[in-house]
Amino acid sequence: MSFLTITQMQKAAAGIITPEIIQVASSEFRQPEEIRQHVASGTIVIPRNIHHTNLVPIGIGRLLRTKVNANIGNSALSSCPEQELVKLKNALKYGADTVMDLSTGKNIPLIRKQIIEHSPAPIGTVPIYEALARAGKAEDLNEELILQVIREQAEQGVDYMTVHSGILLEHLPFARKRLLKIVSRGGSILARWMKQKNKENPFYTCFDDILKICMEHDVTLSLGDGMRPGCLADASDQAQFAELGVLAKLVSRCRAAGVQSMVEGPGHIPFHEIAMNMRREQELCGDAPFYILGPVVIDCAPGYDHITSSIGATMGAYHGASMLCYVTPKEHLGLPNAKDVRDGVIAYKIAAHAADIALGRPHARDRDDAISQARAEFDWEKQFELALDPDTAREFRREALKESGKELDHEKKAQYCTMCGLDFCAVRISKEI
Amino acid sequence: MSFLTITQMQKAAAGIITPEIIQVASSEFRQPEEIRQHVASGTIVIPRNIHHTNLVPIGIGRLLRTKVNANIGNSALSSCPEQELVKLKNALKYGADTVMDLSTGKNIPLIRKQIIEHSPAPIGTVPIYEALARAGKAEDLNEELILQVIREQAEQGVDYMTVHSGILLEHLPFARKRLLKIVSRGGSILARWMKQKNKENPFYTCFDDILKICMEHDVTLSLGDGMRPGCLADASDQAQFAELGVLAKLVSRCRAAGVQSMVEGPGHIPFHEIAMNMRREQELCGDAPFYILGPVVIDCAPGYDHITSSIGATMGAYHGASMLCYVTPKEHLGLPNAKDVRDGVIAYKIAAHAADIALGRPHARDRDDAISQARAEFDWEKQFELALDPDTAREFRREALKESGKELDHEKKAQYCTMCGLDFCAVRISKEI
Repeated sequence: MSFLTITQMQKAAAGIITPEIIQVASSEFRQPEEIRQHVASGTIVIPRNIHHTNLVPIGIGRLLRTKVNANIGNSALSSCPEQELVKLKNALKYGADTVMDLSTGKNIPLIRKQIIEHSPAPIGTVPIYEALARAGKAEDLNEELILQVIREQAEQGVDYMTVHSGILLEHLPFARKRLLKIVSRGGSILARWMKQKNKENPFYTCFDDILKICMEHDVTLSLGDGMRPGCLADASDQAQFAELGVLAKLVSRCRAAGVQSMVEGPGHIPFHEIAMNMRREQELCGDAPFYILGPVVIDCAPGYDHITSSIGATMGAYHGASMLCYVTPKEHLGLPNAKDVRDGVIAYKIAAHAADIALGRPHARDRDDAISQARAEFDWEKQFELALDPDTAREFRREALKESGKELDHEKKAQYCTMCGLDFCAVRISKEI
Repeated sequence: MSFLTITQMQKAAAGIITPEIIQVASSEFRQPEEIRQHVASGTIVIPRNIHHTNLVPIGIGRLLRTKVNANIGNSALSSCPEQELVKLKNALKYGADTVMDLSTGKNIPLIRKQIIEHSPAPIGTVPIYEALARAGKAEDLNEELILQVIREQAEQGVDYMTVHSGILLEHLPFARKRLLKIVSRGGSILARWMKQKNKENPFYTCFDDILKICMEHDVTLSLGDGMRPGCLADASDQAQFAELGVLAKLVSRCRAAGVQSMVEGPGHIPFHEIAMNMRREQELCGDAPFYILGPVVIDCAPGYDHITSSIGATMGAYHGASMLCYVTPKEHLGLPNAKDVRDGVIAYKIAAHAADIALGRPHARDRDDAISQARAEFDWEKQFELALDPDTAREFRREALKESGKELDHEKKAQYCTMCGLDFCAVRISKEI
């Protein structure tokens, strides 16, 4: 093991403006020196494993455009390597900024290798999944195996890894009071392990060794929330915030080691508690980028959790979350397929974009003003081109024209749509005034 | 014309606790006297035309559960009476609290008659659509025709009507500065009429006559926003707020006449301006129920405007909007079909419910806690029953099981889903701890 790698964070701290910083500054309309300062202090991360050579760097932090992550990956019950590449393609096509491979089934290393090779976006993983798959039984999980898996993933080029190092033995009683106990997969596996062995969380006890591997390959850590609430009834409780306190200390240890870090957040939060949750993370964790999952804001709409959670995600991003982990329509029901990946990414691009506009980020509204201009001019083709999902927009217009018996060549020319028809088209009438 | 009808508002002002007030109090977990006071002051409306005999009364106001309206109706290009009944059925099935018939095509009176007969929910209309359809040419619109249409619709049993009485001749120059001018159908028709004739808005000049008809049949007025912005670039501008000032004065005139009234609002508003818009209406308009359309919070997602706008609708309801007019995925592209109606209603039930939970309305979270309990118990059937859209939830689980080669009878029994599979199911693992 060599320690010669100088990490992105260490370079920034040494005053070096790296090519990655220049790239991020340029795509975010910021000054490189400003980005450097934030990377040095840890309030912006630029995940880039030194082995992920085809990566186009992006920055994640409260100062920057809100990022969207799409989870893909198989389960023991579903999917194969080819299907996962289709999901990757879909996620990138519709604008995911990062992609996590959460495979827990067969062929995990092969799937990951292909995903990294095909992705210019940073790739994240949750190493405990592969560790458990390799251990076979949860009892056989141990520090050595965990470190081995993390090392192999780092060598393969994984840009950021979720480690559930914040859930401790002393937190377990807090979960007992909950309606849905522990809903994080990593969290529940570790909780059972700790309970069975009456030993502290191995991801916590070997955290310094994890940091060494991250330093060597310049891996960003995403500090997982194993205690995230799984329903509104469990939101913002003692279990959640006890773990957040530990995550805050781990952020400091990452920063001291020159390892970039993010903090993961819930999950399920009622709308009125979202701002408080964002503020609390910023204050406790030294403004480390907050990477939130949703949150969903109601529990009773299975089949529509891309919507319930894009509402929470917008509010979260508006109050300072830096990256939004998408939720698909299949959440709470099954493993997402390629269509679900698309629907999830689009819902989250909407949330991120809505927050970016509300926060006045540079040029955030350009695309919206351009599409409004195209609407004023009845330039349908331009509207489609500027849409987050041109295919669906085009298809819906075609469907509506077809249902009203109009020929398809109306599609491009008509100075109205079937919503109002010619005589009631407000945009057309307005032009006459 | 007889003036013997005593309106809901007049009865409430006289201290009478009507059957409608009792019904609303019961369904909202409130005291009848509290509801009566709000109806008397105009901060709650209970739309009920005396001729709509099969109506189940609901209340609309900031104190009460957030309501959702679904627009249906044909255009000159699309749909027939039967299709509109299918849309009505879909809207009610998924929980729309009120339905507006916005037909602008053929058979308007027949479609409306059928809709009123089949709907226990209050029915709204926009009389200028029928008036224009009957006039043929916009120039031929006049006060007499407008009043005649309003009278006929009132006699037929329409519970509330949108009248664009707030857009005045003096406001027209404000719209000229806009990217998308006037996007309200009623607003654009009236603007052109005023411009061509250089005369004041007939819905404004004959407002007292409109009030007389509303008093006679106890019709609630929904004061339309003909100047609502049609894109983010036009939001919260002079045109919008100049009209809002007039609407505020019309609210006072309605209240003085004992006619219930709501105020309609935008439309397109960036996320950070929504709270200000809600506050402004409350302050200016004496807290008259605010009935908002969306608002969409980004312009570049045609095909997904049920999502872009459910985000804005949640924020709007959280800050005091009383009723949310849905937006369907077809918005900006064409006339919604029955599936679009379902998708729009569900997205808005989500928004309304999220706000009701956030505002701590009585029993708002009961359904969510029950579904979370069912999740903890792997009671799939109960989860489906409690879902806003049981069919879709059931179908998605079935689809996921099928994709993973599982038999369908797994559906009801399995203590996991295909998302994580058996070994990685956090809910199952949690139970073992």
